Amino acid sequence: MRSNGRQADDRRPMNLTVNINKYAEGSVYIEVGDTKVMCTATVEEKVPMFMKGQGKGWVTAEYSMLPRATQTRNQRESARGKLSGRTMEIQRLIGRSLRSVVDLQALGERSVTIDCDVLQADGGTRTTSITGAFVAMALAMHKIAQKHALPKFPITDFLASVSVGIVGEDTLLDLNYEEDSKAKVDMNVVMTGRGQFVEVQGTGEENPFSRSELDGLLAIAEKGIREMIEQQREALGPIALQISSRQPGSAV
Amino acid sequence: MRSNGRQADDRRPMNLTVNINKYAEGSVYIEVGDTKVMCTATVEEKVPMFMKGQGKGWVTAEYSMLPRATQTRNQRESARGKLSGRTMEIQRLIGRSLRSVVDLQALGERSVTIDCDVLQADGGTRTTSITGAFVAMALAMHKIAQKHALPKFPITDFLASVSVGIVGEDTLLDLNYEEDSKAKVDMNVVMTGRGQFVEVQGTGEENPFSRSELDGLLAIAEKGIREMIEQQREALGPIALQISSRQPGSAV
Amino acid sequence: MRSNGRQADDRRPMNLTVNINKYAEGSVYIEVGDTKVMCTATVEEKVPMFMKGQGKGWVTAEYSMLPRATQTRNQRESARGKLSGRTMEIQRLIGRSLRSVVDLQALGERSVTIDCDVLQADGGTRTTSITGAFVAMALAMHKIAQKHALPKFPITDFLASVSVGIVGEDTLLDLNYEEDSKAKVDMNVVMTGRGQFVEVQGTGEENPFSRSELDGLLAIAEKGIREMIEQQREALGPIALQISSRQPGSAV
Amino acid sequence: MRSNGRQADDRRPMNLTVNINKYAEGSVYIEVGDTKVMCTATVEEKVPMFMKGQGKGWVTAEYSMLPRATQTRNQRESARGKLSGRTMEIQRLIGRSLRSVVDLQALGERSVTIDCDVLQADGGTRTTSITGAFVAMALAMHKIAQKHALPKFPITDFLASVSVGIVGEDTLLDLNYEEDSKAKVDMNVVMTGRGQFVEVQGTGEENPFSRSELDGLLAIAEKGIREMIEQQREALGPIALQISSRQPGSAV
Amino acid sequence: MRSNGRQADDRRPMNLTVNINKYAEGSVYIEVGDTKVMCTATVEEKVPMFMKGQGKGWVTAEYSMLPRATQTRNQRESARGKLSGRTMEIQRLIGRSLRSVVDLQALGERSVTIDCDVLQADGGTRTTSITGAFVAMALAMHKIAQKHALPKFPITDFLASVSVGIVGEDTLLDLNYEEDSKAKVDMNVVMTGRGQFVEVQGTGEENPFSRSELDGLLAIAEKGIREMIEQQREALGPIALQISSRQPGSAV
Amino acid sequence: MRSNGRQADDRRPMNLTVNINKYAEGSVYIEVGDTKVMCTATVEEKVPMFMKGQGKGWVTAEYSMLPRATQTRNQRESARGKLSGRTMEIQRLIGRSLRSVVDLQALGERSVTIDCDVLQADGGTRTTSITGAFVAMALAMHKIAQKHALPKFPITDFLASVSVGIVGEDTLLDLNYEEDSKAKVDMNVVMTGRGQFVEVQGTGEENPFSRSELDGLLAIAEKGIREMIEQQREALGPIALQISSRQPGSAV
Repeated sequence: MRSNGRQADDRRPMNLTVNINKYAEGSVYIEVGDTKVMCTATVEEKVPMFMKGQGKGWVTAEYSMLPRATQTRNQRESARGKLSGRTMEIQRLIGRSLRSVVDLQALGERSVTIDCDVLQADGGTRTTSITGAFVAMALAMHKIAQKHALPKFPITDFLASVSVGIVGEDTLLDLNYEEDSKAKVDMNVVMTGRGQFVEVQGTGEENPFSRSELDGLLAIAEKGIREMIEQQREALGPIALQISSRQPGSAV
Repeated sequence: MRSNGRQADDRRPMNLTVNINKYAEGSVYIEVGDTKVMCTATVEEKVPMFMKGQGKGWVTAEYSMLPRATQTRNQRESARGKLSGRTMEIQRLIGRSLRSVVDLQALGERSVTIDCDVLQADGGTRTTSITGAFVAMALAMHKIAQKHALPKFPITDFLASVSVGIVGEDTLLDLNYEEDSKAKVDMNVVMTGRGQFVEVQGTGEENPFSRSELDGLLAIAEKGIREMIEQQREALGPIALQISSRQPGSAV
Repeated sequence: MRSNGRQADDRRPMNLTVNINKYAEGSVYIEVGDTKVMCTATVEEKVPMFMKGQGKGWVTAEYSMLPRATQTRNQRESARGKLSGRTMEIQRLIGRSLRSVVDLQALGERSVTIDCDVLQADGGTRTTSITGAFVAMALAMHKIAQKHALPKFPITDFLASVSVGIVGEDTLLDLNYEEDSKAKVDMNVVMTGRGQFVEVQGTGEENPFSRSELDGLLAIAEKGIREMIEQQREALGPIALQISSRQPGSAV
Repeated sequence: MRSNGRQADDRRPMNLTVNINKYAEGSVYIEVGDTKVMCTATVEEKVPMFMKGQGKGWVTAEYSMLPRATQTRNQRESARGKLSGRTMEIQRLIGRSLRSVVDLQALGERSVTIDCDVLQADGGTRTTSITGAFVAMALAMHKIAQKHALPKFPITDFLASVSVGIVGEDTLLDLNYEEDSKAKVDMNVVMTGRGQFVEVQGTGEENPFSRSELDGLLAIAEKGIREMIEQQREALGPIALQISSRQPGSAV
Repeated sequence: MRSNGRQADDRRPMNLTVNINKYAEGSVYIEVGDTKVMCTATVEEKVPMFMKGQGKGWVTAEYSMLPRATQTRNQRESARGKLSGRTMEIQRLIGRSLRSVVDLQALGERSVTIDCDVLQADGGTRTTSITGAFVAMALAMHKIAQKHALPKFPITDFLASVSVGIVGEDTLLDLNYEEDSKAKVDMNVVMTGRGQFVEVQGTGEENPFSRSELDGLLAIAEKGIREMIEQQREALGPIALQISSRQPGSAV
Repeated sequence: MRSNGRQADDRRPMNLTVNINKYAEGSVYIEVGDTKVMCTATVEEKVPMFMKGQGKGWVTAEYSMLPRATQTRNQRESARGKLSGRTMEIQRLIGRSLRSVVDLQALGERSVTIDCDVLQADGGTRTTSITGAFVAMALAMHKIAQKHALPKFPITDFLASVSVGIVGEDTLLDLNYEEDSKAKVDMNVVMTGRGQFVEVQGTGEENPFSRSELDGLLAIAEKGIREMIEQQREALGPIALQISSRQPGSAV
């Protein structure tokens, strides 16, 4: 039995509170257990230099932790004058994942930047950021679609993410910090509403893992993500229909 | 009449929610109108190099805005690789102000770092940060005092801050962003519970101001701060007694 | 009695030597006691990006200390790779103060940058920089006005600055380094020739101060600045007339 | 049929030239097709701050590309003043992978730094770096083991890496640059001599992928890595025995 | 007798291997004893901002050492976030030297960047870089001349460089690291095929040197460079004719 | 005839004003024509890390230009966040030159840092800095020698520097900015009182130069430096005796 009485394949409680920022085109406050992330989506009517003139849009993400999101205070990256490798790796992952379910052509030459700021961290900050960022992005896309009367909604599928791992002998869903620090194998999975993989990142730094362990991890990740997408659908309300209506064959 | 139906010397509604962070020794979520700041206080059993070996403690502060705290998105200072002059000026002000009501000798050779992270900005972010930071610091000092059985509580007085300004012909208390951007004169005042000034920073970049205008600004600032300190006292509950009981002659 | 036999409201001797740089459009070497600052004003026929196309000019300032301006050598900010918070705060103050007496419309779409380089520091380097920078700026504005036959001289008033403070029981004018380091309250005041305030920055980090102490500080600051502006007027000679002739009601 | 007449599950020719650097404790020049990487291993008799006093060693890696390793010249990261997110992500991956087959306790309080410098890039630079880095590390570990008469050889297994991907309908092994830029799905796999996974990083930015596609990718990756480890074994000669002799049940 | 049995005025063996990079317009791998440098020349159809619109080209160079080029590992300049003074000094020297034998007018508005990356260092890395960079540049110029049918070949003369020094009583040609570290006087000389000086940089940090010592150093440097230019000529084959045919009075 | 009526081998007027800084252990204001440099020497009772425990001292230098030292304003290196290659090259040159006439053993484990700040530039700023830095260093060494009763004065010879060049057909001494920008060959020479070379740096970027041209340049450089050292001797007064008395065979 895990802390909080969870079974091996139970997620922590997840809450999504939408539109919590007065200025952002889309915003969500997401809590997964004690991990708390504020996600805001900003729309700009321009694209980065390398995308100019292609008639396509761009989606990117930034990630940061407040200094006291963690047990001991972290020095601000602004004070250190540079982003850590970990931060860069995470924000590249979030942006790449989001773009996998965006039709950049349908978006048109504009960009959406999703900021994921971790207010409190208790494991799974990158996966929680992706799950929240998707909702903030969907809200912003809805505003764009309405304002510019886009013929096609630019989001092609749902997207959520969860961490899984092997702790001792157990294959666990949605690790908190304490479990994560004891895990022999740690895997982050990003999946779509149709049940396809977008990212699979498994690491066995201290204990390489077998093919059958990998299979077990993927199975519970899929279960967790399927549940999370249901919650995203509820949080988005009618906006969710614009996404699912375009995917008749979706597994979700 | 001001937006929200305020009189010239009315403050915006202020809310203080204490202990909102699982890890920090002190934490407060402060809302002043639509300005929202998370303040966390971190205790460390060491002092900066330049303070070592003096048997005294140190209090410092850091300030930052989330990228979408404002109407248009701001680039992160971590991405730009350096702090702006504005950020440095503000965090120096917060730290200096807090230290004015701390008995560093009584604190002993340990440090308290207060992080003020602006989640949403609508004018007065630096003054709101100071008012919130004081409460977060008081909570942390209480933990230190208990844990180490300090003979003397290290906080000597209350501390709060407000902005005042002249907009058109009117001398206004607690400017929101819209008022602030039209103000001819802008002043930030930091005061103690005893009604003494800690910082007075008045600027008339576009319109120099007269002595009588200055007097009017200081008068309403004092009124606003007096009210704010009452709210701090309530938020701190019994901890407040450790502060006020030591100041028999206090005006508050 | 203060060191050098000064009374509480005596300034240190001030010297202004104009046109000490072969290339700059305006330049002044200012000495206030042992504080020595070189101020140069540079004119460029362009404005920063954020001011473009408004038909208005811009005035900005930079401030720096030579490494051995002080008792112990300071590391260069160029070697450290970034400006300190103190430097940024000071150069923002100088620029803001100067702009308060400039008619940016009359200046036209060009910019004036004033560099204040402290060759030797003995207290009051920021106030001395402002007083000197005004003169360097006026010389440069004269060149602009002549060269481009401006219909209106772009400077609307004189500007000078002084520090005041409370040391022990005494309210002192123009603190040197030794006095400054013992001061309980430290205040920098920037005023115009008409006797209006542009900046009032009072700090009582170790000792909060009362309203009557504030009043005493402002009174001697006004006296000091009035005297300094007389010296600026002399140093500028006929150029001064272009400033004062436009201010018939000036108190100076 | 692929360029160079390769079948879908054919690797490119791989060459390993050992001891190509006069100073490094271990060094390898690895060529995989037109991808060419120089790997050097440096031994130091100290560990990073965060590892001190634990009686354990540390292994870390750095990765860089020469400016003209690529078709168009890349600006040096030293000239830009910071590492890109891509570089940091790759060097974290290399270090983590290497540590998975090192017994840090057996290594003792010393560190091995492996530098992977890409002289020419034609796809798969990170996987090639890992495969080469392992050999450089093994050579250095041999020197350490001899010099300090370590009771146990600190390497616990072989380690190699390959990229796989889906291009059009085909699941391909060891993509070159041209294939990589057309791939819908791109996966890097790091495996041990025993056939366990150390890292599985699959990305379908433009096309999410199904579970059966994932299975196909893992299968050919395993084939490729098995072959590569045979080549590492040959390159290491007698030193390889110290690794394999300790793994009687190894699949390789 | 020197190590390797060299006489005082003997160079170390030098090898030039051309076209070792698949992408660069010109490339050379140069070995001088155990000093090994990879030089690549990149052509771009644009010039830096400060050269625009003059109808002239530009040639510049960058220099770097791999971390383990030296006996003990050097921290990467990309990790430190800035170039050392030594690196900047060397790359300025290389660029300046190359430009002395280029007809920028004949080159037209395009630029050639030569990257010199030291794979292994054993003294004389800057002089070896210049000698190799010339050959890489000549190969790239040949491509430009052919592709754009330039009426005039843009290289006006050969160029090579060598270090000389005084060790003990001896005036030595082409110092290796061991000799360099014992040298009282160290001089780098860059000369053209016509026997003219382009750079003479002599330093006697620990022992100032006399005029006659200077004369002796210049004499052996000239001998060494003359020999090196013969080898460059051979390495360039028919391309060399385009250079020498334009210099009927050349001493070489 | 040159501007100012100078002959080819005439220097510009040089003035040395000593002890112009209240805090520095040694200080000089040096003017060579319109080139004006402030040199201060700082003594610290410690040496850099790499020199510790050797019983020897260290001498180093820093160089900077004020933004308006030049015809058009230069951006501050502190604002750009890094030193230019030119600055680093110059300060390395100054430090190296000064150390050539210092007995680091006699100095003992302390360091002298010479700051050369160019207030106005009209050619020859690096050579003027060296000439002035020597005098500032000598003044500081005198203080050290007295305070610590050093048995041996740590300066072993005089040191000065001048620039020479070829403009048109003429070999000129001490180029001003206008001459320097037209020079085909530019050479900086640093020599000792005994007439030995410390640095010879000749560059013919646009026009390689012959051996006889080099000889001509060295001859007038020697003349100029000899004269400058006479002026240094006068400026130092009795302190000069401590230097010359130890060099009976000196040519000066």
